[in-house]
Amino acid sequence: MKAVNQDRVNNLLMGLAEFGKTEQGITRLAYSDEDRAAQNWLLAQVADLNLQVREDAVGNVFLRRVGEDDSLPAVATGSHLDTVIHGGMYDGMCGVVGALEALYMLKDVKLKRSVEVIIFRAEESSRFGFATIGSKLMTGNGSPESFSKAAKKGELSYIEALANWGCNPANYKEAIVKPNTYKSFSEIHIEQGKVLEETGKQVGIVHNIAAPTRFKIHIKGMADHSGATPMGFRKDALVSGAKLILAVEAAATAEKDNGTVGTVGVVDVEPSSINVVPGGVTLWVDVRGVNNESIGRTLEAIKAEAKAVAQSDGVVIMFEMLTADKPVALSEELAKKAEAICEAEGIDYLHMNSGAGHDAMHMAKLAPTTMIFIPCKEGISHNPAEFAKLEDVCRAIGVLAKLLEVEANE
Amino acid sequence: MKAVNQDRVNNLLMGLAEFGKTEQGITRLAYSDEDRAAQNWLLAQVADLNLQVREDAVGNVFLRRVGEDDSLPAVATGSHLDTVIHGGMYDGMCGVVGALEALYMLKDVKLKRSVEVIIFRAEESSRFGFATIGSKLMTGNGSPESFSKAAKKGELSYIEALANWGCNPANYKEAIVKPNTYKSFSEIHIEQGKVLEETGKQVGIVHNIAAPTRFKIHIKGMADHSGATPMGFRKDALVSGAKLILAVEAAATAEKDNGTVGTVGVVDVEPSSINVVPGGVTLWVDVRGVNNESIGRTLEAIKAEAKAVAQSDGVVIMFEMLTADKPVALSEELAKKAEAICEAEGIDYLHMNSGAGHDAMHMAKLAPTTMIFIPCKEGISHNPAEFAKLEDVCRAIGVLAKLLEVEANE
Repeated sequence: MKAVNQDRVNNLLMGLAEFGKTEQGITRLAYSDEDRAAQNWLLAQVADLNLQVREDAVGNVFLRRVGEDDSLPAVATGSHLDTVIHGGMYDGMCGVVGALEALYMLKDVKLKRSVEVIIFRAEESSRFGFATIGSKLMTGNGSPESFSKAAKKGELSYIEALANWGCNPANYKEAIVKPNTYKSFSEIHIEQGKVLEETGKQVGIVHNIAAPTRFKIHIKGMADHSGATPMGFRKDALVSGAKLILAVEAAATAEKDNGTVGTVGVVDVEPSSINVVPGGVTLWVDVRGVNNESIGRTLEAIKAEAKAVAQSDGVVIMFEMLTADKPVALSEELAKKAEAICEAEGIDYLHMNSGAGHDAMHMAKLAPTTMIFIPCKEGISHNPAEFAKLEDVCRAIGVLAKLLEVEANE
Repeated sequence: MKAVNQDRVNNLLMGLAEFGKTEQGITRLAYSDEDRAAQNWLLAQVADLNLQVREDAVGNVFLRRVGEDDSLPAVATGSHLDTVIHGGMYDGMCGVVGALEALYMLKDVKLKRSVEVIIFRAEESSRFGFATIGSKLMTGNGSPESFSKAAKKGELSYIEALANWGCNPANYKEAIVKPNTYKSFSEIHIEQGKVLEETGKQVGIVHNIAAPTRFKIHIKGMADHSGATPMGFRKDALVSGAKLILAVEAAATAEKDNGTVGTVGVVDVEPSSINVVPGGVTLWVDVRGVNNESIGRTLEAIKAEAKAVAQSDGVVIMFEMLTADKPVALSEELAKKAEAICEAEGIDYLHMNSGAGHDAMHMAKLAPTTMIFIPCKEGISHNPAEFAKLEDVCRAIGVLAKLLEVEANE
């Protein structure tokens, strides 16, 4: 096996970072022109790998190095190219670039099974309000219609964006992966947390993935003139909303020791005018953890506070569930193989959990799955300041390449 | 003098309500196509009044009934045609329609002075974040540039909208009204509060107008991955923002007995994504009252809480002042004339304050000014449920017509 080529990895990461670049970071939303351009550019860069290229019915892309016996379940790896609004250059990209670099390293190595690099579409929820849409649809979870229900005002729904991409939304079931397609799935990703950095570990091997529960809280008060409506005569939906923003924070903080987190990321105010008491507010809430009971307690605490606020403020509060995924246990067996590689190479690894959701959650339904985490600076992610050292990225690629080799010859 | 024509008043109000009509109310923003179309339609309806029509350098429109001695300071009346987002059909329109109906009533009455109906542009702050822009510019207060600084993301600034309207923003000073142009100014308006309804009065005569102090609170925290950033490791600008929304509510409520109100009407979240801890929040705040000291205490309380939140949450909080108008005392003399008319007609009136700001605030710098308030249902305004009884509207028009007659022959 060839050594990892740091220059190529760096060039591919830097090159991808040009697509959707803005002064406040990279905005390369799923199914956007930037998403397409980044993918086309990347495919052109790795044309010398001579991979079979295939796009499925919902826009996921598969790059296949054909093995000696292409009829055997293939060894899969990959990640995503889309970013959040004002994101960084590592989240997703390390997993795609790392998978391709691993294929360069394995170019002259005999492999019994085929190896497939998957570029999952729409891993980030920034555009449609749902995460990991591509891998969900690959595993028969949801439909273009269900992913359209959180569409932001004035923007394309998922169904519309999918059609714009060139796919026929009605054919989405063709994207469902058949049993025994894959032998295993491994994904490189930056940690997006501070655990590796704080423990001084070089690589993380993931055994559980926290899953998001996402919902909207709709608050209906009464829009009134902001100057002529005395205090005490108002039903200000934003005041009630503020109490619930703090309730989400408090409920999650009470479950901090169980690793649960809660965030209100979006606030829609109606009518959103400086001289009108807000008549309606919608909060978009994300609660996550690896402990189902802790997540449940967090949700209950938020609902209890909503009930109390509805009573005290005289407003109507309704919950709209968007997703309620369960935490996912990954393959202990595949993780042990990765850890054995780390030990053989003298790499200081940590067996850990992932706080963020990943396409690997869904791939775990298709085949034994693991993730290889790269330390990232101060845990910063979904932010232009996102940073991982090139040597840390390449170390994880080395582990992946070995793991793919082991898997492909088993 | 002819009697008020209820049908004409009703037809003009109903006709105007068609411009910018939506399922959630009327949205006829200042300087919009709907604003223009409503004005053109109205001018066509009253063509038989044979008024001189003039537009000033910033889009205010003046409809003049020429008196016997046009060289004397004219008697002015009027209001505005723009609405908030999802507004009603009375705010502003009653003052314009009422002024025109008064001219119909006075059509065959000899008047020494000219009477001018003013259609003020951009009374509502919904589009540009500043209220009463037209009357401010008429009185040398502000500039197109200063009214552009609160421009909403992705929308036209005031300067751009003014140019679109056909005005040259550089010529804005030509709109400043010369001394002795007007003898007095009277404006009919719905109360936008519940005082007349609750006291059972038929008409309100206004002696003070509360003025808005408006500012933005900018909160800078740290954008982070919502799944991988533990509670306690965050600088969530929205959590800090929620505390300040409640601080505005609490500070104003503490000054309730002095008639002060405080509202956060707009929240901008950055990056506004369900999977990112908010890194930046801007709150748009409106504080009003008729008591300067009470307003001052409210602002101080909000600032003190902002300081405390900045310290406790580790975020940066900055205030950006937009407007800080002083409450305005109107003309006691002109109010007494209006009250004398009410007494002579057997109308049960109330001498009162206005919680809402009006163009009359600025006109008070040019000439003795008063306002005639119409009771409105439940005080609801800036809302499609805004409602005033036709008989109440027409009663106020009757008072205005008499007052204009008295003033024009003085």
